[in-house]
Amino acid sequence: MSEPEQSAVPTAAMLVIGDEILSGRTQDSNFAYLAKFLAALGIDLREGRIVADDEVGIAAAITALRPRYDYVFTSGGIGPTHDDITTDAVAKAFSTPVSVHPEAFAQLAGRYAPGEFTPARQRMARIPEGALLIRNSVSVAPGFQLANVFVMAGVPMIFRAMLEDVAPRLRRGSLVRAVTIRASVGEGRIADALRALQGNHKDVVIGSYPYFREDGYGVQLVARGRNLAAVEAAAMAIELMLVEAGVASERLSG
Amino acid sequence: MSEPEQSAVPTAAMLVIGDEILSGRTQDSNFAYLAKFLAALGIDLREGRIVADDEVGIAAAITALRPRYDYVFTSGGIGPTHDDITTDAVAKAFSTPVSVHPEAFAQLAGRYAPGEFTPARQRMARIPEGALLIRNSVSVAPGFQLANVFVMAGVPMIFRAMLEDVAPRLRRGSLVRAVTIRASVGEGRIADALRALQGNHKDVVIGSYPYFREDGYGVQLVARGRNLAAVEAAAMAIELMLVEAGVASERLSG
Repeated sequence: MSEPEQSAVPTAAMLVIGDEILSGRTQDSNFAYLAKFLAALGIDLREGRIVADDEVGIAAAITALRPRYDYVFTSGGIGPTHDDITTDAVAKAFSTPVSVHPEAFAQLAGRYAPGEFTPARQRMARIPEGALLIRNSVSVAPGFQLANVFVMAGVPMIFRAMLEDVAPRLRRGSLVRAVTIRASVGEGRIADALRALQGNHKDVVIGSYPYFREDGYGVQLVARGRNLAAVEAAAMAIELMLVEAGVASERLSG
Repeated sequence: MSEPEQSAVPTAAMLVIGDEILSGRTQDSNFAYLAKFLAALGIDLREGRIVADDEVGIAAAITALRPRYDYVFTSGGIGPTHDDITTDAVAKAFSTPVSVHPEAFAQLAGRYAPGEFTPARQRMARIPEGALLIRNSVSVAPGFQLANVFVMAGVPMIFRAMLEDVAPRLRRGSLVRAVTIRASVGEGRIADALRALQGNHKDVVIGSYPYFREDGYGVQLVARGRNLAAVEAAAMAIELMLVEAGVASERLSG
């Protein structure tokens, strides 16, 4: 199977799997958690997708994402019930057979009382051939890594525990530094100056995020980049611009 | 431009746009809000995507999604600053020119004091030709509807207000009914019975969602479908199965 070429900065995508997210029953929290987790490793999360418990849809998303990014992370659909179809869908995307993993089977068998290790639970030992297990401290049911795709549980506590097992396998990048400046001004009033400023600081990405709250409105301006000196220079230029515009500001971070 | 064929049940996808979601700075809440909003209209949300503030990436996602679903909703990137590029990206996906919308321009002009209607703010009146405006009660800056694509703000308060303006334009479907049953049991112990039960209730989708909390673990079983009698029959079959398995349960909804 072909691997994507390694880029200088490791890149990633996430595939959130589950009818319950699309129906509005459950608010996903794994995407935001992964975003922060990867940021701390210097890995750029570039894309997310949310799909239903549908084998064709899951396989199509895996096929689309895995050549484009260094890593693809999935959440959801690896439990023992009939709606847990992620393992087979991922295997299909790789044209890889699924078989019982002896080690996973033994560990699951050791976890249950006699008679409790049901055929459904035994299904959780079905792993695509050649995959590495992903362990977690909460449950004996494993996830797995197949090439650059990491297949993990949807239950947030287990998803997070699995990431701890995955982290040492990931190539790290240099950290993105960010400075956030809050200003009590409508972003439209400073937008022209901000555009010019972005043009003068091309190594830094400047984001403008307006907010509306009961106590008033304003904007959070964020300078992000991997060169700390460049980020600081852009942040100071933003602060100078705000002073010149007569706008009060404060640094929230950085 | 070609429209997707109307399916019996209206379908939708959402495209969340913004570096701040991918970096972990901001937890998106618009997707979950839209999911519930559409469920109340009987519209099936089938897919979600999250992309960066990147014109090529946004246009590619629009091109992929709009022929597949009756409606595509976007959030983010329509403000006055340099990182607001959604309008141009969507126009590019449709090969449609962007021009100043006279009505939007007049309304924005009326909102600002003389000298405050900056070139940046004037940019918010740039709308793809042929698009319908999407108003909201919070801000005069409009979103727009181009064919089956609804382009809306990322600020949750404005996104939600824009949905109120959009709702009357949407074809409604029959409502999905759901019954949720909580059971204090590991899902693995009832998974085989549940699979058989799903086989006997093909008009209903049965979902199994395990939870782990400080006071113990269990599972929420959800029967979903558009035929209320079929959903109720499946729910009663689940409850009977739990009784036979000696598991305590309670209905949480339905």
